[in-house]
Amino acid sequence: MIGGIGPTSTLDYYMGIINGYKQKRGKPNYPEIIIYSIDMFEMLSYIEEKHWDKAAAMVSCAVNSLALAGADIAAIASNTPHLVFNEISRLSKIPLISIVEATCEFVAKEQYKRVLTIGTLFTMKNGLYSNPLTSQGITSLLPAEKEQQEIFSLFFPNLENGIVIPEDRVKMLELVNNIVKEQNADAVILGCTELPMMIKQGDLCVPVIDTTQVHISAIVRNMDL
Amino acid sequence: MIGGIGPTSTLDYYMGIINGYKQKRGKPNYPEIIIYSIDMFEMLSYIEEKHWDKAAAMVSCAVNSLALAGADIAAIASNTPHLVFNEISRLSKIPLISIVEATCEFVAKEQYKRVLTIGTLFTMKNGLYSNPLTSQGITSLLPAEKEQQEIFSLFFPNLENGIVIPEDRVKMLELVNNIVKEQNADAVILGCTELPMMIKQGDLCVPVIDTTQVHISAIVRNMDL
Repeated sequence: MIGGIGPTSTLDYYMGIINGYKQKRGKPNYPEIIIYSIDMFEMLSYIEEKHWDKAAAMVSCAVNSLALAGADIAAIASNTPHLVFNEISRLSKIPLISIVEATCEFVAKEQYKRVLTIGTLFTMKNGLYSNPLTSQGITSLLPAEKEQQEIFSLFFPNLENGIVIPEDRVKMLELVNNIVKEQNADAVILGCTELPMMIKQGDLCVPVIDTTQVHISAIVRNMDL
Repeated sequence: MIGGIGPTSTLDYYMGIINGYKQKRGKPNYPEIIIYSIDMFEMLSYIEEKHWDKAAAMVSCAVNSLALAGADIAAIASNTPHLVFNEISRLSKIPLISIVEATCEFVAKEQYKRVLTIGTLFTMKNGLYSNPLTSQGITSLLPAEKEQQEIFSLFFPNLENGIVIPEDRVKMLELVNNIVKEQNADAVILGCTELPMMIKQGDLCVPVIDTTQVHISAIVRNMDL
């Protein structure tokens, strides 16, 4: 697993995979998991400056290190680096399980029709979920540019460090609920692995899709017992 | 880092190293950390059956995988496997930072004279801390055999899974406080990385030494910026 983007969601993945594996196996044993935790700030700086090749090289290097350490399959514990998922996959020596693919499959299975995606500014403005959703006949909705800025302003530094400020949460829920009503969405993709700390199922007027949990389920399904 | 022994203390190490590194560096960047999380149950079965060579081979294999993935130094995020630390070190291609060595240095610096060690049954009955403390002129104390069994009975399955049952905590504190008084200890080594969830500074009638925190500090001191 590629971790550190950010560290708090790495913890969610680690415990989620261990618990999912134990349930699947029906024995108390723990799976072997290798985590390469990278410097999120370096990775985000490449994405911010649209140095897509550097971002893909950095993540695929870490994936290939995991392969050297013995990993058979890999996953990136974060949405944002999936902007360069195809290039990372091409450069990587082991198969990668995509959070975007797993989430779009989930959305299709649940038969949602008009889905709003929120996440980091990079994820929203580059439409990480737009093409994959559209290609499945699902209408992909995004916050307006100003709303994207407002949502992202509630990420750093607290949420990214695992801290939910109650006032920030109130602002976020109000903001997202308004967008849901305006755009008539029937579900919201939490397209950032830190968002589930702030937005829980039942917090919005429509169902939320926790990409971390959907991704963990896909990873566990792909693990050998 | 070798993790998974158990998973909850791996989380403590991971966040502790990231926060310690950020403080040391004075910038928000995250360090590169590679974690190989092994199956604790397999490892403990070797230790229980005194297959010391198998336990050392299992852990050193994981350390050498970390070296292949690019790690320069390593640490085992657990006390128990340190029973075979010398053999693991001999078989490993990169230097290892020992929790026992770091803790004994701390005890010597704090000038404690009579130190009680509690931990897993394996750690207590094999006297993990006995020789290293004695060689520094410190009196190493251990619970009597029956007390060791009582202490260890409070570990599985809850504490090892990160759950502190209030009744178990009351029992543990009473038990350890009685041993401290009986044996006239001036400090207690929490010789298991899960124990700090149950016993905090101030909970006993003498200071407690949190081996996880002492180990994390030693690891961060050894990290390049």
